[in-house]
Amino acid sequence: MDIIEIISKKKIGEKLSKEEIDFFVDSYVKGSVADYQASALCMAICINGMDDEEISNLTFAMRDSGDIIDLSKIEGVLADKHSTGGVSDTTSLVAMPLAAACGCKIAKMSGRGLGHTGGTLDKLESIPGYDISIGAEKFFEIVNKIGVSIIGQTGDLVPADKKLYALRDVTGTVNSIPLIVSSIMSKKLASGSDVIVLDVKTGSGAFMENIDDARELAQKMVAIGNSAGKKVQALVTDMNQPLGNAIGNSLEVIEAIEILSGKHRDSDLAIVSFEIASRMVFLSGLAKTIEEAKSMVEQALEKGKGLKKFEEFVEAHGGYKKVVKNFSVMGEAETIVPIIAKKEGYLYSVKAARVGKAAMLLGAGREKKEDDIDYSVGIWIEKRVGDFVKEGDVLANFYVNSREKLEEAKETFYSALEFRNEAPESGELIYNIY
Amino acid sequence: MDIIEIISKKKIGEKLSKEEIDFFVDSYVKGSVADYQASALCMAICINGMDDEEISNLTFAMRDSGDIIDLSKIEGVLADKHSTGGVSDTTSLVAMPLAAACGCKIAKMSGRGLGHTGGTLDKLESIPGYDISIGAEKFFEIVNKIGVSIIGQTGDLVPADKKLYALRDVTGTVNSIPLIVSSIMSKKLASGSDVIVLDVKTGSGAFMENIDDARELAQKMVAIGNSAGKKVQALVTDMNQPLGNAIGNSLEVIEAIEILSGKHRDSDLAIVSFEIASRMVFLSGLAKTIEEAKSMVEQALEKGKGLKKFEEFVEAHGGYKKVVKNFSVMGEAETIVPIIAKKEGYLYSVKAARVGKAAMLLGAGREKKEDDIDYSVGIWIEKRVGDFVKEGDVLANFYVNSREKLEEAKETFYSALEFRNEAPESGELIYNIY
Repeated sequence: MDIIEIISKKKIGEKLSKEEIDFFVDSYVKGSVADYQASALCMAICINGMDDEEISNLTFAMRDSGDIIDLSKIEGVLADKHSTGGVSDTTSLVAMPLAAACGCKIAKMSGRGLGHTGGTLDKLESIPGYDISIGAEKFFEIVNKIGVSIIGQTGDLVPADKKLYALRDVTGTVNSIPLIVSSIMSKKLASGSDVIVLDVKTGSGAFMENIDDARELAQKMVAIGNSAGKKVQALVTDMNQPLGNAIGNSLEVIEAIEILSGKHRDSDLAIVSFEIASRMVFLSGLAKTIEEAKSMVEQALEKGKGLKKFEEFVEAHGGYKKVVKNFSVMGEAETIVPIIAKKEGYLYSVKAARVGKAAMLLGAGREKKEDDIDYSVGIWIEKRVGDFVKEGDVLANFYVNSREKLEEAKETFYSALEFRNEAPESGELIYNIY
Repeated sequence: MDIIEIISKKKIGEKLSKEEIDFFVDSYVKGSVADYQASALCMAICINGMDDEEISNLTFAMRDSGDIIDLSKIEGVLADKHSTGGVSDTTSLVAMPLAAACGCKIAKMSGRGLGHTGGTLDKLESIPGYDISIGAEKFFEIVNKIGVSIIGQTGDLVPADKKLYALRDVTGTVNSIPLIVSSIMSKKLASGSDVIVLDVKTGSGAFMENIDDARELAQKMVAIGNSAGKKVQALVTDMNQPLGNAIGNSLEVIEAIEILSGKHRDSDLAIVSFEIASRMVFLSGLAKTIEEAKSMVEQALEKGKGLKKFEEFVEAHGGYKKVVKNFSVMGEAETIVPIIAKKEGYLYSVKAARVGKAAMLLGAGREKKEDDIDYSVGIWIEKRVGDFVKEGDVLANFYVNSREKLEEAKETFYSALEFRNEAPESGELIYNIY
């Protein structure tokens, strides 16, 4: 088979066969297809698209390019969740303990944050002692015993995606539904769980700014998961402002613990987290209906079972479980700088990506992979879209250890906010569930 | 400026500015834009196209990426010709001596052959002694004195094209009118001539199989040349069978000499060569009308001035000028193998590229750049499209030194021919002149 012929076919919009897609993925991982050939093919896919069969074949070829995690040492149905990434997206830390408290088995491999989005691993590591690399045996043991474990990626999982994603990032070929679907789903399928709940973010702080693209992405991921024998549901949720109020690693852990403690029950973060937890419970077969699953999650919250589960799995990973009672063990920022409203009006919109960028400038996130992060810094938002704000009101508090980029962070934050004289129409939080 | 933004713009079909195109070409030549980024952009250009302004800007940026040949030491108007490449395309060896005999000044840098197309340099080197690397001073001197010199490329001419063409060749991005126009015209403009006659081949043996594409390519090249202040005309000519009867280096020299000696005056090769020579004479201002130019070329042929000019410039390059009287000085193939018709019928079509491939298999051409070629081998065609052929007729003679790939060459040749019971409609030779 000849890679130039394969590229040329997609260039004129023809459909690629399973054999051609397998050849491309295999040869690219082995190195006999060069980066400059792969990028040309990715561009042709970006522009001319792929049909559902091609996307399936690409996803499965990528899944099979490396290790597939064997979770057979864990008893029961295994559930996973995935978010396409946003700002203050702390749903994993809320939804997973709640779902585990309802009986779900969750063996989750998570990632680090980059750019304006935070990573669950970084958040967990802000808890003293939490070990993300505990080894497979202990991972299985914790899930069997407690129901939930979150670790860093192990094994040589989907090397095709590692190589392709790095290439797409520097060749303007990130934004393509076939390539995003295959990137996400190849990893989810290789991770070995039976149930997958996906949260596709849409809006100014998301990968998919356009809601129709987000809907298409969600539906295609569900279809591919189903065709691989998995139970999958996908939410399309709003990322037109940060989901929670905390942005920054220890701050997000604090907000998650507060929600698990019964606070902020009507907050956007709580609502989306409860929905995800309920879908995990339902798809795992632990409830007959989604309503029953929701009521189980509600009970787990009210009886403090979710918080208990959080303590248990943190402790099982060597983390300091007293964190739930004493946030200061995570270390505190030196200074809290209030960000003051300069004029009155309704907070009309918030560009979530810019708020994430402001937190990154404070040291909460990484610009490049090798950057260090400061767990204790970040932003706590005090006003949300629709709130009426008077001059002098505190819009947010910045948790600061270094003043080096403070002014730039402030400017970035202010530039994220739009005020108007009239209130915005109240938008939806969960647009669709597929 | 950011290459990823430039790639992303072309990905969604937006127009690139002059500054963006300059940045791309300059950065790619310098190496700060990587091959994988250039190939992604080339693919986006292939699919989404470029408008005339973008094509001009790309052509000029490429032209300016390296040396521009200074021909000011040659007196008078300088004329050049270029063919997009075909099989048995010996027009340079016929048209240039004839045009020079009419007063044209031709300082031509030519190339080697690759694949099924032959190169003028290789053909000239089949003449004992002919030196293609005589240095700039001697090059200018020969053109001033004799009117025509053909050498290999000198200087660092259009390095952007060298890099881009090699990349396009392995990434399925050769076939794109904006990229072909800019590749050809950047080199022609950097070569310094005032008059350019282009021959765009179309048909089964050509780069541009489709005639509409060939027409578009021809028109765009003329427009770009004009906008750079050059006098340019472009022919669109047929390559649905080899243009001449000879394929192979010394054989093509023989056919050119025969035409210059007054033979085969109604042959396709002669007609196209005379047309090119006449256009060069006309655009150089040596005739008031194209009719006058044609009659001058006619005269030059009849009086043997073209042949004389051929002898002179071969001699000036150190070549053995007696070649025009004694072809055997070029060395002769050991064996002539007649290729016999297996059944009777009209020769309905000939796939020119396959005939070129058959000659390559006999050793007349290169599969890869580093391959050696055998000047004396090749194919002499005895039947052309429209001829009625009886069983046992000689279709062609193979000039052979090695039998290693003879059978494969025979099969390839036979597979190029289609016979039918009825004669084909007689096709056009010169479709358009722009």
